[in-house]
Amino acid sequence: MAFIFRVNMENKTVKKEAVPKAYASLGGRALITRIMVDETKPDIDALGKENKLIICPGLLGGTICTSTGRISIGGKSPLTQTLKESNAGGIVSQQLCRIGVKAIIIDDCAKKGEWYLLKVNADGIEFIDALEYVGKNNYELSELLKKRFDPKSGILSIGVAGERCYKAASVQVTSTNGYPSRAAARGGMGAVMGSKGLKAIVIDPPTGFSAVTYANKEAFLAAHKVFVEGVRANPNSGVGMPNLGTAVLVNPVNMFGMLPVNNYSSSKFDSDGVKKLSGEYIAEKMAARGGRVGHACNPGCIIHCSNEYVDENGKYVTSGLEYETLALCGSNCGIGDADIVAKMDYMCDDIGLDTMDIGAGIGVAMEGGKASFGDAEAAIAMLQEVNDGTEFGAILGNGAESVGKHLGVKRIPTVKGQAIAGYDPRSLKGTGVTYATCPQGADHTSGNLLGAANLNPIDKTGTPEASFGIQVAMCTMDSIGICIFASFCTADDPKYAVALADMLTALTGESWDVDRMMGLGVETIRLELEYNRAMGISKDKLPDFFCTEPNDVTGAVFDLTDEELKSVFPF
Amino acid sequence: MAFIFRVNMENKTVKKEAVPKAYASLGGRALITRIMVDETKPDIDALGKENKLIICPGLLGGTICTSTGRISIGGKSPLTQTLKESNAGGIVSQQLCRIGVKAIIIDDCAKKGEWYLLKVNADGIEFIDALEYVGKNNYELSELLKKRFDPKSGILSIGVAGERCYKAASVQVTSTNGYPSRAAARGGMGAVMGSKGLKAIVIDPPTGFSAVTYANKEAFLAAHKVFVEGVRANPNSGVGMPNLGTAVLVNPVNMFGMLPVNNYSSSKFDSDGVKKLSGEYIAEKMAARGGRVGHACNPGCIIHCSNEYVDENGKYVTSGLEYETLALCGSNCGIGDADIVAKMDYMCDDIGLDTMDIGAGIGVAMEGGKASFGDAEAAIAMLQEVNDGTEFGAILGNGAESVGKHLGVKRIPTVKGQAIAGYDPRSLKGTGVTYATCPQGADHTSGNLLGAANLNPIDKTGTPEASFGIQVAMCTMDSIGICIFASFCTADDPKYAVALADMLTALTGESWDVDRMMGLGVETIRLELEYNRAMGISKDKLPDFFCTEPNDVTGAVFDLTDEELKSVFPF
Repeated sequence: MAFIFRVNMENKTVKKEAVPKAYASLGGRALITRIMVDETKPDIDALGKENKLIICPGLLGGTICTSTGRISIGGKSPLTQTLKESNAGGIVSQQLCRIGVKAIIIDDCAKKGEWYLLKVNADGIEFIDALEYVGKNNYELSELLKKRFDPKSGILSIGVAGERCYKAASVQVTSTNGYPSRAAARGGMGAVMGSKGLKAIVIDPPTGFSAVTYANKEAFLAAHKVFVEGVRANPNSGVGMPNLGTAVLVNPVNMFGMLPVNNYSSSKFDSDGVKKLSGEYIAEKMAARGGRVGHACNPGCIIHCSNEYVDENGKYVTSGLEYETLALCGSNCGIGDADIVAKMDYMCDDIGLDTMDIGAGIGVAMEGGKASFGDAEAAIAMLQEVNDGTEFGAILGNGAESVGKHLGVKRIPTVKGQAIAGYDPRSLKGTGVTYATCPQGADHTSGNLLGAANLNPIDKTGTPEASFGIQVAMCTMDSIGICIFASFCTADDPKYAVALADMLTALTGESWDVDRMMGLGVETIRLELEYNRAMGISKDKLPDFFCTEPNDVTGAVFDLTDEELKSVFPF
Repeated sequence: MAFIFRVNMENKTVKKEAVPKAYASLGGRALITRIMVDETKPDIDALGKENKLIICPGLLGGTICTSTGRISIGGKSPLTQTLKESNAGGIVSQQLCRIGVKAIIIDDCAKKGEWYLLKVNADGIEFIDALEYVGKNNYELSELLKKRFDPKSGILSIGVAGERCYKAASVQVTSTNGYPSRAAARGGMGAVMGSKGLKAIVIDPPTGFSAVTYANKEAFLAAHKVFVEGVRANPNSGVGMPNLGTAVLVNPVNMFGMLPVNNYSSSKFDSDGVKKLSGEYIAEKMAARGGRVGHACNPGCIIHCSNEYVDENGKYVTSGLEYETLALCGSNCGIGDADIVAKMDYMCDDIGLDTMDIGAGIGVAMEGGKASFGDAEAAIAMLQEVNDGTEFGAILGNGAESVGKHLGVKRIPTVKGQAIAGYDPRSLKGTGVTYATCPQGADHTSGNLLGAANLNPIDKTGTPEASFGIQVAMCTMDSIGICIFASFCTADDPKYAVALADMLTALTGESWDVDRMMGLGVETIRLELEYNRAMGISKDKLPDFFCTEPNDVTGAVFDLTDEELKSVFPF
């Protein structure tokens, strides 16, 4: 039987609670939102004791289904002030599922000056004094923890950014290669973790049988077989991803005038720069240098989108160098060199930072005169300032909007305080609608319409409806705990969505169909919007400059009216 | 006939426009709000070309009525994002009225890198290149301008804070003593002026007859006689103010547990500190040192609330050392010495900063560990950082909320981004209601209930109604252009309000009564609330700590519910 660990950081108590009936068929984003709505008031301080840090797998977490190793980490975001669920790969979700953890709910804050590790296994959670680890960043920290505890432990941790409650701070998750290289990056969940005095959570590698039981394992395997066919058949998840990772997107995104260049002032990047950021280039270099592409961040995933980036001497630099990082820390800062971006990615993972809000923040800082676009040394020096905690470092650590406000920059590419992703919303209007309206702030994973078959990317026609549909679907996937890439196939053929619902039925013994499954997304978004509205957060729009400055490749501006954006949600 | 100067900073054009009929019976705050509603969209960038800087006297400006020399400066505030009217004394209002200026509306922004002076007289406005003055603060600047132009010119100007668009930047106004010591300080109007590339406005001293004409001068004089009786009879404006200035409040405010001490963590200040901030002490010292109390900031004012503060050698330090500065830069920072606060006041006037948001910001910085409470050297060093434009200086220049967010301080005494005044809202709940609900952000002058006869300051009973009444009255007074202190008497006896309305009738030849007069306030507040709501600004509350931490003198917390706060405005 699954259970909930409820941890009180102030009293250092842990309760093992039965899963309330209402929560049994929720997971991931849906469960986090439900708990936050049930247990908190919208007006709470995101860095105060009333906020919660909730860690939970999705509904299919821990099953043999491919790509269901996402771990959701959420609460109220100090960056967006909205509810937030940020998920990552790595090995933690499966370890928690195996010992029966439905969720870990972390309440309250440790007393001032106190810092703890939580050591988790099926029997309970132990508080361990963590003062000796304060000031250490994620790579060194995870090495120390793997030495002190079992080296196969899954670890969630924060670097100095989270300790200092910087609003772009991530929670890092250890990957199959043992590195803390997977990030629940968006919305400052690392700051929430830091506000609680929690430096890391260490999960003992589970032994013995998994706590995950199937109502009908045969039916599950049958449905899974169909689903896997879908994943393998999808042109992106089945082919491009394993070969090139998400960096496969650099070339097509550039071709369609969607690549952010120099703080979204252009989508024309010099061809050498595009080449040196592209998945093709990275794959070639990694092959020559002895790095890896086609790495799986969690056991059993058949997509293998990740990579291990090595330098010219074959020495490890970073892992999981992703498209968004290449776009935001790369072309968006005028930097056309994957070797530089890989270094920035490492620093972000180590310090514990969202590469997207930081890349956008460096771009804004460059526009504000802190350095020239393309000045890689300056970009790395800015990251070092975040690490060192200088005044400007703290400002950048708080994300792109913080930088823009500090420097008086007009063109700040954020919505609800959060940086948008690496797709120019003028040239990809459907995704722009998602940026503008997502209740969690600008977020591409909540509903990216890149490549949507029936939409012209620079035409707004149909985008409100399409954004609503994809936001519901993605919210559902983030509740099931399945990777966004594996979910692509559900758009190819309805039978793959049916297969997912069939797996839920076969797992739980309850009756699931696609409608019920998508209902997870609908209800969760509805609750999140209500929570926002109670705080007076109701403005859905993109920064003005996207609406007035044409993209220099497509000539398009973002032209959805307030009313069209309002029409996205029927509630 | 009065007229409007409309200035376009980008094109360097000036139009002299007739006053539209709808604006004829508006002035000050009412006129600014009306123009902003008519000519701008709520969502504009407060530091962008769509915002306006509007400068206008009140309805009774330029008349012989006492204390009507307030100059209103407004637009959309970069600090609060709301509409904002900030008014100051000094000699500018009367000079503008005398040449017939109903309002100066400043549109657009000068081209990047360009800076201008505007030289104003009845014939028109001349653009004068101001590059040579960039980087100069208000005291040096006004000396240079008085040398270059007529030394009796009235001047509105900004220091480096406004040039850099710091959100706590003031517009300084020259006083009767020639110093730029009167501040339209709240809401960052200096930043708006800076965003327009406008360094100063210089008004040629008017010659010849005044453009102000009376429909019935005899009736005006008769009504004025009644009103003056009221001003003289009021125990505060008639007696305490001329002798001690607003610093007269230090002792009673301290006695009633309303004094902010150490970032509102206490209202107990050491008795020596209270003494050395008090009006009585300042008056005694100024008498001994050869300073002045009982100075009038604008010609003809019978209240004389101001002072000229000199040091031990009799050398000028600052003028207009006010209660709010003594409270916010003094006890709120743990500093109990008027000599220090006078120096801080001078620096704020010179750099062009709101002493309230800056004092509150230094208090927050001290709470955040930047320095100890009471560390006067550190406080002055922080102000110097604002002047020097260091990273932290820019943060402090953006006000208390900016400092609190940067340092992760929980207790930030702001509402809608603006620092509250020097009255603890737990011990003066009526004023707390005004802080929470005023559409322009926390502002005591928009409705201070200190000393309200029928209210128990620590009991919430009746405060929503009382706050509404005083907010309407103060908005009306800020539209008439009469000093808040002169308006006190209208609460003593209805005949004084009647006298004010009678003066409006006698001036304009239209029929005014008290209802029509107060209607200015009602309609203006209604428009401001609408403007806010269109931007999604509707949250009216005080920072949580006032609701949870009892004041240590009175034991009171701020206990008005959301519903009670919502009930303040009937629209």
